Amino acid sequence: MDKLYDLIIIGNGPAGYTASIYASRYKLNHLIIGKVPGGLATEAHSVCNFPTESRISGIDLMHKFQQNVQGLGTKEVIDEVLDIEKVNSHFRVSTRNKSVFEAKTVLLAIGTERRKLNIPDEEKYIGKGLTYCATCDGPLYKDKTVAVIGGSDAANTSSLYLAQIAKKVYQIYRKEKLRGDPSWADQVMKNEKIEVIFNATIKEIVGNDRLKSIILNNDKKIEIDGLFIEIGSVPSTAILNNLGINVNEHRYIIVDQSQKTNVEGIWAAGDITTASNGFRQIITACSEGAIAANSIFSYILEKR
Amino acid sequence: MDKLYDLIIIGNGPAGYTASIYASRYKLNHLIIGKVPGGLATEAHSVCNFPTESRISGIDLMHKFQQNVQGLGTKEVIDEVLDIEKVNSHFRVSTRNKSVFEAKTVLLAIGTERRKLNIPDEEKYIGKGLTYCATCDGPLYKDKTVAVIGGSDAANTSSLYLAQIAKKVYQIYRKEKLRGDPSWADQVMKNEKIEVIFNATIKEIVGNDRLKSIILNNDKKIEIDGLFIEIGSVPSTAILNNLGINVNEHRYIIVDQSQKTNVEGIWAAGDITTASNGFRQIITACSEGAIAANSIFSYILEKR
Repeated sequence: MDKLYDLIIIGNGPAGYTASIYASRYKLNHLIIGKVPGGLATEAHSVCNFPTESRISGIDLMHKFQQNVQGLGTKEVIDEVLDIEKVNSHFRVSTRNKSVFEAKTVLLAIGTERRKLNIPDEEKYIGKGLTYCATCDGPLYKDKTVAVIGGSDAANTSSLYLAQIAKKVYQIYRKEKLRGDPSWADQVMKNEKIEVIFNATIKEIVGNDRLKSIILNNDKKIEIDGLFIEIGSVPSTAILNNLGINVNEHRYIIVDQSQKTNVEGIWAAGDITTASNGFRQIITACSEGAIAANSIFSYILEKR
Repeated sequence: MDKLYDLIIIGNGPAGYTASIYASRYKLNHLIIGKVPGGLATEAHSVCNFPTESRISGIDLMHKFQQNVQGLGTKEVIDEVLDIEKVNSHFRVSTRNKSVFEAKTVLLAIGTERRKLNIPDEEKYIGKGLTYCATCDGPLYKDKTVAVIGGSDAANTSSLYLAQIAKKVYQIYRKEKLRGDPSWADQVMKNEKIEVIFNATIKEIVGNDRLKSIILNNDKKIEIDGLFIEIGSVPSTAILNNLGINVNEHRYIIVDQSQKTNVEGIWAAGDITTASNGFRQIITACSEGAIAANSIFSYILEKR
């Protein structure tokens, strides 16, 4: 704790890593802290719209980012930030592993978390047939029957991926037409292994040690081996409690065009923000990270 | 001319190509037209801040983009757009090679051009010691002697950045006092590695295969390894004449958060716009292209 960094980047997804690459170029003395290298992006089975890659897994894509960050000599701490507090004119960041770091500026690139269904026994069956990540757990369901919940890109791509592994995929969606990228939606509708059930929600999960079936709102019971919940994400703003950072009605952090928050010394970038017209993509997160690093560089220069 | 496209993308740099990749995923029937595949980005000798590449030439990087665009089956027309006119409810685009294309929407990803010094041999030494981008090429000049031309923010920050890498930085400015952010100007003046030469311009560049020295208007000769021309860029807005598109005082196209211009049916993305906090980078251009494509997709869906 004897060192005062120019910048601490919290979050090691696309925004945090890109910010780190720019910060290294600006010779900002910085540190990056995050729970999972690559962040939520690593859960994408297949990324087809990153402009330099025709098709790549989220894990492989984020590994390229991480290699660059490490190649530039930046220290990456795999840990969970529990608190950020303002101490005099700088910030003190405390982690679950009881490390404490201090910096002149903070970049919040803390992303979002999977949205839960909020139905009875949802927590109970996590890891016992219920999962929020097709890419992670899909391979466990070879020749089995699974259900995917949701109707936008995440759900559609999960169904397509699972159809390559499982015997049968039910996709259950509360609306009457799939949303998101039409290429994915078309492929789901044409896939013989996928049966889409529209206008449906889950009322109940049935099982013992493991999940065995689901009961829909129309009381139809479907026997399944695995349940994949792919209904989007929510901002991870738990650590912002005492900082007074302005968020919008959905708890996304409000930033200006330079990615600055309302609190002096704190910037935000990536899925957690209101920037990029709300279009939360790997490429937009990267851009926000770069803009933030550039703005932080100007701020640090002015303070010197 | 019998075909009405959903979208014509004008410009085939990072913004145009990324917009095309997203437009393909959205199944928008579109065309991309541009003069030079890859645009201005191809002039970067070395790109070190694209997050998936540790170091790559601008040409190789943009080739990856182009391969993806082509792999998705999009038609790329290498030609120069001379005119865009509104005809009834759509747009007619005319090119130097006398082609005419029509579309419901247009994305202007037409970029900027480096402002040149307009001195003898300037073109000849590009990539041979002469560059227009300190961020791109700075790291090549570790412990070398360089000169920066200009006196506003771009030049001042370039000098400060280069002073961290190079042995010695001459900053040559035609006026008698640095402009831009005073704290940066102050730091330039105080930096022991930077020697600012005021009231000076370059008369001649001397070298063989590579640039070796410059001769100033007072006939002083300075030996250098690298020459950084940081006198800004100029938007390429010649084709916008009759469209009534709002531009700012420097002729950059004013866009909203969805990259839309004030003219219905016309979007803009990349270096040509006022977005991304004015931070004109490959990654920010990509993001603007993606956001624009997403916004155009919504617009086309609503019109169907």
